Amino acid sequence: MKDYIIKDEWNVIEEGFDPQLNKISESIFSLGNGRMGQRANFEESYSGPTLSGNYVAGVYYPDKTRVGWWKNGYPEYFAKVLNATNWIGIKVQIEDEELDLAKAEVSDFKRVLNMREGYLQRSFTATLSSGKRLKVNALRFCSIANDELGAIQYQLEPVNFSADIKLTAFLDGDVKNEDSNYDEKFWDPVDTDINNEEAYLTLRTKKTNFEVCTGSFIKLLVNQQPQQFKASLTQQDKFLAQEITLNAKEKQCITLVKIVANLSSQNHPKSELLQTAKAVIAQAKAKGFEALLDAQKQAWAKKWEQSDIIIKGDVAAQQAIRFNIFQLFQTYTGKDDRLNIGPKGFTGEKYGGSTYWDTEAYCVPFYLATAPQQVSKNLLIYRYKQLGKAIENAEKLGFTNGAALFPMVTINGEECHNEWEITFEEIHRNGAIAYAIYNYVRYTGDDSYLADYGLEVLLAISRFWKQRVNWSADKNKFVMLGVTGPNEYENNVNNNWYTNYLAVWCLKYTLSVAQEVQQKRPEKYAQLLAKLSFSDAEFADWKNIVENMYFPFDYEKGVFLQQDGYLDKEQILVKDLAASERPLNQKWSWDRILRSCFIKQADVLQGIYFFEDDFDHQTIKRNFDFYEPRTVHESSLSPCVHSILAAKLNDEARAYEFYLRTARLDLDDYNNDTEDGLHITSMAGTWMSVVEGFAGMRVRDNQLIFNPFLPSKWESFSFKINFRGATLTISINAKQIRIYNASAQKLSVIIHGQPQEIAALTETEISNVTLV
Amino acid sequence: MKDYIIKDEWNVIEEGFDPQLNKISESIFSLGNGRMGQRANFEESYSGPTLSGNYVAGVYYPDKTRVGWWKNGYPEYFAKVLNATNWIGIKVQIEDEELDLAKAEVSDFKRVLNMREGYLQRSFTATLSSGKRLKVNALRFCSIANDELGAIQYQLEPVNFSADIKLTAFLDGDVKNEDSNYDEKFWDPVDTDINNEEAYLTLRTKKTNFEVCTGSFIKLLVNQQPQQFKASLTQQDKFLAQEITLNAKEKQCITLVKIVANLSSQNHPKSELLQTAKAVIAQAKAKGFEALLDAQKQAWAKKWEQSDIIIKGDVAAQQAIRFNIFQLFQTYTGKDDRLNIGPKGFTGEKYGGSTYWDTEAYCVPFYLATAPQQVSKNLLIYRYKQLGKAIENAEKLGFTNGAALFPMVTINGEECHNEWEITFEEIHRNGAIAYAIYNYVRYTGDDSYLADYGLEVLLAISRFWKQRVNWSADKNKFVMLGVTGPNEYENNVNNNWYTNYLAVWCLKYTLSVAQEVQQKRPEKYAQLLAKLSFSDAEFADWKNIVENMYFPFDYEKGVFLQQDGYLDKEQILVKDLAASERPLNQKWSWDRILRSCFIKQADVLQGIYFFEDDFDHQTIKRNFDFYEPRTVHESSLSPCVHSILAAKLNDEARAYEFYLRTARLDLDDYNNDTEDGLHITSMAGTWMSVVEGFAGMRVRDNQLIFNPFLPSKWESFSFKINFRGATLTISINAKQIRIYNASAQKLSVIIHGQPQEIAALTETEISNVTLV
Repeated sequence: MKDYIIKDEWNVIEEGFDPQLNKISESIFSLGNGRMGQRANFEESYSGPTLSGNYVAGVYYPDKTRVGWWKNGYPEYFAKVLNATNWIGIKVQIEDEELDLAKAEVSDFKRVLNMREGYLQRSFTATLSSGKRLKVNALRFCSIANDELGAIQYQLEPVNFSADIKLTAFLDGDVKNEDSNYDEKFWDPVDTDINNEEAYLTLRTKKTNFEVCTGSFIKLLVNQQPQQFKASLTQQDKFLAQEITLNAKEKQCITLVKIVANLSSQNHPKSELLQTAKAVIAQAKAKGFEALLDAQKQAWAKKWEQSDIIIKGDVAAQQAIRFNIFQLFQTYTGKDDRLNIGPKGFTGEKYGGSTYWDTEAYCVPFYLATAPQQVSKNLLIYRYKQLGKAIENAEKLGFTNGAALFPMVTINGEECHNEWEITFEEIHRNGAIAYAIYNYVRYTGDDSYLADYGLEVLLAISRFWKQRVNWSADKNKFVMLGVTGPNEYENNVNNNWYTNYLAVWCLKYTLSVAQEVQQKRPEKYAQLLAKLSFSDAEFADWKNIVENMYFPFDYEKGVFLQQDGYLDKEQILVKDLAASERPLNQKWSWDRILRSCFIKQADVLQGIYFFEDDFDHQTIKRNFDFYEPRTVHESSLSPCVHSILAAKLNDEARAYEFYLRTARLDLDDYNNDTEDGLHITSMAGTWMSVVEGFAGMRVRDNQLIFNPFLPSKWESFSFKINFRGATLTISINAKQIRIYNASAQKLSVIIHGQPQEIAALTETEISNVTLV
Repeated sequence: MKDYIIKDEWNVIEEGFDPQLNKISESIFSLGNGRMGQRANFEESYSGPTLSGNYVAGVYYPDKTRVGWWKNGYPEYFAKVLNATNWIGIKVQIEDEELDLAKAEVSDFKRVLNMREGYLQRSFTATLSSGKRLKVNALRFCSIANDELGAIQYQLEPVNFSADIKLTAFLDGDVKNEDSNYDEKFWDPVDTDINNEEAYLTLRTKKTNFEVCTGSFIKLLVNQQPQQFKASLTQQDKFLAQEITLNAKEKQCITLVKIVANLSSQNHPKSELLQTAKAVIAQAKAKGFEALLDAQKQAWAKKWEQSDIIIKGDVAAQQAIRFNIFQLFQTYTGKDDRLNIGPKGFTGEKYGGSTYWDTEAYCVPFYLATAPQQVSKNLLIYRYKQLGKAIENAEKLGFTNGAALFPMVTINGEECHNEWEITFEEIHRNGAIAYAIYNYVRYTGDDSYLADYGLEVLLAISRFWKQRVNWSADKNKFVMLGVTGPNEYENNVNNNWYTNYLAVWCLKYTLSVAQEVQQKRPEKYAQLLAKLSFSDAEFADWKNIVENMYFPFDYEKGVFLQQDGYLDKEQILVKDLAASERPLNQKWSWDRILRSCFIKQADVLQGIYFFEDDFDHQTIKRNFDFYEPRTVHESSLSPCVHSILAAKLNDEARAYEFYLRTARLDLDDYNNDTEDGLHITSMAGTWMSVVEGFAGMRVRDNQLIFNPFLPSKWESFSFKINFRGATLTISINAKQIRIYNASAQKLSVIIHGQPQEIAALTETEISNVTLV
């Protein structure tokens, strides 16, 4: 837990330089545009603690797996997004001294992440050992308008001296991942091309043979006047540099502009990579830095128009929610259905940039409401395209007949994770992928998705569940043995209620979607069934499971049991745990955690959240009251579900309390792990706490429903929702709800149970509901 | 499965050279003397497939752990017995050609492991590329009479040429373990000393700082006449060599004798290591090779006198049982209570030479019956001495109050294994350690052991069980959650019947031992309780658990349930599994194995075996009939328990069938893994099948009991038993049992329920019992 970020509505601000915080700030101030991203490393050399990180989406390396004890079926590699060419580098030398904030005296240090306009600015004054003092002001961004571009404006001013200054702009491809399993470097050189103003470095990943060409253009200005210069060039296999020496005068403003293009062979033929990079650089050069920055500001303004949340009366909350939205959009823009959302986005190496169930369970709701429909559709199509691999994955585990098990962790559709209790057993991910289809169709009304993509995935998933359950002669029911639920503080349990419920729901949903597609798109339906060699007997099997599945339940307490035997555990509550015992995952050995009743993250409650309409208020309350006091929330994905359910149960104080646990998770380095990267996917959970929790938003019967309340610490809050072509701005204060409908069509919504007509292109005030 | 070993009563024989079998033979023909041991590598150079292995007992290295995903509480290292100085090396060069069986034409190749006399002999004729042919006859042994000594007699004869021959005797300490986690070499050089005839290489292990001095003396003979020679010397940090060139004549017999001492700082002060090695070499040199070999023969004769099993009518069985006994005695001689029995002994690197529960569950019964009492006592004292570390280990996992959890895998008392499902959960090992105390006292009558050592261990183990169970409000019983039983094809189960039963037995046994010690040794008792801050309330707690423990049981089937929920599994029998599916651990993914009903090794039946007097015949039969058909025996420790129980149930055919599964496990390379090393600990299980199974030997009320039968394929069998100072030879044929009592006291035994007096120093014939 830290508290050094200065609160501001639109900016994330750090003042004063503390090397101990640098790796944390490198994560917090990260930049990205969905196609590439980077940690907030310094442009100039820095010999203090740093984690260098530049990433290109979709470019991965299959790092050979290293485990202590191999289990049959483990994947051979863990695909990870690579540390790619460092393109920000600008080395600064003043006579024989090098600018390095670890060695200079630093004052007036300030870092600002301007979230409204999408750039990072850093300024400081450095006094070198010689006494020479210089001011630096660096601004950079990853362009969201053209996601193959990045740009830096690096300004420096000699405060108290005139001297020769050397500026070396470089591209460094001789990088490696800190988490490389065998200390390997993952890039081979392909091509270099350099002149006075431009440099192009092309590298190829080992094994996967992706090529990435990084091109740069540099421009020198003194007191805003462009300068001719003659650079001294360095041209190595994986390293290119242009060294400019200029005679700098006291108080001059020296500016080096560096515009960079990052092109991947995923998007361009390898043979054209270099020439395309040159064209992109030529265009960018023609536009110039200012125009690129303007385009960036406009692009971000457009994003905010569809997604902003305004919180009045709580600047920390305001900053945090915008930070979360900003980072989510920096990570994923939805343009490319081959990309997805790594838990740390472009802000660190951890989790390898891979896709987890986080996407379907937490991120899809965010993108559905805040971005064009195609964005979440692409997240779904990502899995659709990996269906073949998911079927292969299931085959490796002994499943047949086209059953699919999507991987727990993946980049290209192949499983990467190798803890048996997760890889093989945390199969609820399959259900989350089905749920995302349901969620998407429910929200968008785009039921053509089902015939075109969804049903095929659902059939394969249902085939998996059919084979994964077995008949228990003892219970006279179907059971599901040996699974790990969302609560990873249990492993290899029998009849995890959530997984059983999800499996049965998947089967039911697939049956209903199949019926719907059969009616609406009979030809497509027939084609699909033929392609899959599907027999109607399978439907009968599924119905049998739906009707005869076992769900652990305690009649005395009236609660669903997380799994068989849960009540055999010693029932202690989290509040009775000594502070010194927490977090459990750092203080307790694994077996102790496993046999305790403590829950890492919502499990039964995750199921109730997904399927809340299946349960009455009392059932939800009983389960919430039973499980919440046993949940330690040691996953950042946990509190949002509790927040939303607490809100549903009208427990506004607790809804707010749970929201607080993740709202500023990274800004305040809550878990002392922000230096590894940001918790991108859990940021979507915070958004959910506000929109689904405080505002109680749901979609039912093609209609938006709100059950809002105003957290007592706030004066008001408002958020934007894209719903079926319309952008609504819902504003809630203590007295009223106002909804601005920016679309040309009226819309009817339900607020606290009352139908309300929201006229087109106006703001409607709803005052006849209780809010506080 | 292979079948290339030639059957013989006293010898293991390989004829003909097949490089594909070499690594298997290297394991099978291994030598050892409890203090050091080695794989049957060739003395001369060999460029074909080989696993070089020379080991010194108790000398280990803490190899840094490498796991994919770290869990809190994992040990930081895996201590492994090291590949130590290769002392057998004799390089042979004929002019410019090197003798290398991978490159020569080999004929008349023969390897013989003489088990009666304890040596390895190898002879062959090699034709080099040049056409030069030479005969080699090499004999070597690890002395069991002086366990710091080894010796080689390497003879060669030029068959069809006269030429210069170079013989290079060397000590090579520049070795590493194949399984090194980080490719590290584990030895640092300390000292070298070499002259024409002697060489001394002292090395020190990194981190643990053990020192081992390997000294050698060489002697050259031509046609049995000692020769003067002037060797050319090589003296490097970790490598010493004496190169002798001699002008060899056709048909001459050239002999190089190499006598080697291996001294460890575990047994000698480091400062005296070299001088002691020199003294040991001087003594051995004075005795000479023949005398050392004679001493070896005599020492082995003495071992066989106490332990031999004779099987008539089945030479394969005869060879196998002697092989098992021979290898067990090569691995552990019981002289040193700091040593124990690695599952692969000195025959390979796998399992790191560490101690597992195999020792207590399988090896102790063997050594109790076939070796002096001190031998098994030392195995027990090994654990006693590690009690402090076992308490530390439990503390790391959150236990308090002096509770001990002995490690699953250890050399020095610290846990080495790092799969949570085994390390943290396979806690039944604690019970096996308690059971070995009970077994030892039952067999030897040495109840002083309890006061001197046993009770302290039992109290610490009972404290562990007390804390490891918890009260289930749901079941109104004590339960034990999250364990892995002996059947490792289940992980993290609740209420494993075996573990629950063993825990309760431990508590009961500890209570009774405490009472006994209190009565017989009140002072010692008081001291101990004071030392342990033991309060009588603890006894009350234990009694409460004993009286209120939950045991899963199925009333319909009348069987103990292996664990909660076992009957939820799909109940398929092993006989209905396709051959292509087996072994499961190679064909199925781990989750599939876990959720299947298939059992890796005896679990409930292991408990019934341990505590058979607690159960009536029908209960044993019901459980056997239920579990046996579900057991795949993919642990070599499994069949013996089934064999013994089948024998008890008078199912002689099956008793024999189970015996067959491991009797020739390594000789026939049953599981295609003998090349990694021999299954030393499961060899004790085969012995148990014969003695406890076929002969039905038990000890009850200080008396030996036999319920023998004769396997129908055999004419007769006899075995030797040391029981309380007497050596009995029990011979069983189709018609009678004869017992020869070599002691001066008569003994009363029970045979098939009939008391029988066995007079001293005579053979008693018992004919009034049914045997077939």
